[in-house]
Amino acid sequence: MESLDKIPGIYDRKETLTAPIDVPSVVIKRLPRYHRYLGDLLRTGKLRISSVELAHLMNVTASQIRHDLNCFGGFGQQGYGYNVKTLHAKIGELLGTEEHYTAVIVGAGNLGRALASTHMFERRGVDRVALFDVCPDIVGTEIYGIPVYHADTLEDFCREHEIDIGVLTVPKEAAYGVTAALIAGGVRGIWNFANMELKLENSDVKVENIHLGDSLMKLCYDMKVEKDHKKGSQT
Amino acid sequence: MESLDKIPGIYDRKETLTAPIDVPSVVIKRLPRYHRYLGDLLRTGKLRISSVELAHLMNVTASQIRHDLNCFGGFGQQGYGYNVKTLHAKIGELLGTEEHYTAVIVGAGNLGRALASTHMFERRGVDRVALFDVCPDIVGTEIYGIPVYHADTLEDFCREHEIDIGVLTVPKEAAYGVTAALIAGGVRGIWNFANMELKLENSDVKVENIHLGDSLMKLCYDMKVEKDHKKGSQT
Repeated sequence: MESLDKIPGIYDRKETLTAPIDVPSVVIKRLPRYHRYLGDLLRTGKLRISSVELAHLMNVTASQIRHDLNCFGGFGQQGYGYNVKTLHAKIGELLGTEEHYTAVIVGAGNLGRALASTHMFERRGVDRVALFDVCPDIVGTEIYGIPVYHADTLEDFCREHEIDIGVLTVPKEAAYGVTAALIAGGVRGIWNFANMELKLENSDVKVENIHLGDSLMKLCYDMKVEKDHKKGSQT
Repeated sequence: MESLDKIPGIYDRKETLTAPIDVPSVVIKRLPRYHRYLGDLLRTGKLRISSVELAHLMNVTASQIRHDLNCFGGFGQQGYGYNVKTLHAKIGELLGTEEHYTAVIVGAGNLGRALASTHMFERRGVDRVALFDVCPDIVGTEIYGIPVYHADTLEDFCREHEIDIGVLTVPKEAAYGVTAALIAGGVRGIWNFANMELKLENSDVKVENIHLGDSLMKLCYDMKVEKDHKKGSQT
């Protein structure tokens, strides 16, 4: 078996379904979207789907879908398409959705509360264990059933409870201090809403930076292009 | 001039700096991120930067940067690099950041309030004119200085005030009704946080769907790969 293991993707394809190391990160980034669409299809009772149908639904090309799924060995059969349930389960397995994680949300402002109230975490196997803030009015209370502790205790709490993920919803100015506490406390991932680019060089801690403003800018751009286009077709 | 106009990019490059129609949407999507990084560089007093430096900073390849910026005619000079201020201004112009837009936020829950409190909109030339909700306790009040109106008046308000953008922060179940009212009211863009994929076929109205869960899933995936990698190197 050892020689087979060394061929990228071969071992994984047959056995563990872990992503081979050479899958482009741009493909990985697209997997959650596949997973979401397939989940929606499953709930509507759709059992199989062709790459052309899936492409139309997701507004991408069929060749991109075939290319992306082939990175992991491909799950389709010529003339049959994809089995929706199998594909959904396998992508979920690749993404690690069956794993269990714990998270703390740092910052109990509007955004922290919004994140405390959503079902998004549970759906992805992430348990929100605690909120942290510095405001004396809310420290010691519960928000949507999640206890709020003082930010001073963050590092110890993370270490003691082996927290996996720290969610940053603090102001930019506080973000570096909180990040240091989270890393010292041993978290493995940071989900960053602090409106600054968090880069951890030479660290095993993974970061996802959320920049909602980029999406707003893209929307404005699309609106501008549409307007220019209309203006152009009128003249 | 007419014959030149027909060559994609030629006219635009020389005159208007509007994106040529054949720029891949994946490049357009990356522009806000370039704009953000260049803005940060400007604020630190950096005057010029090479594609290699910028690539390192943004964690992409230098050839991607050169390729992306070449889609718009390229702004770099061999051996000099990019002029940070010029490039920032030109990308801003391409994205339409100098244009002025108005927006309403529909849903004054935690997320709506979080969006009402951020400076992100102003920074992108978007003026938040009003919030809409159905809860009698908050209709008629102001949140962060923004008046809250009843959702029943949404369509008329948008028409009367020629609102450009509707921001959807309502529950999934209410999203389609609100979308219909926004479109009837004449908005040109919808920024959708309602946790469902909004697709408007045959419509001039542009949509940006936000799926925060996809980012959380990507974070979990990266953590899983890191863990597998560590396990692998221990054995």
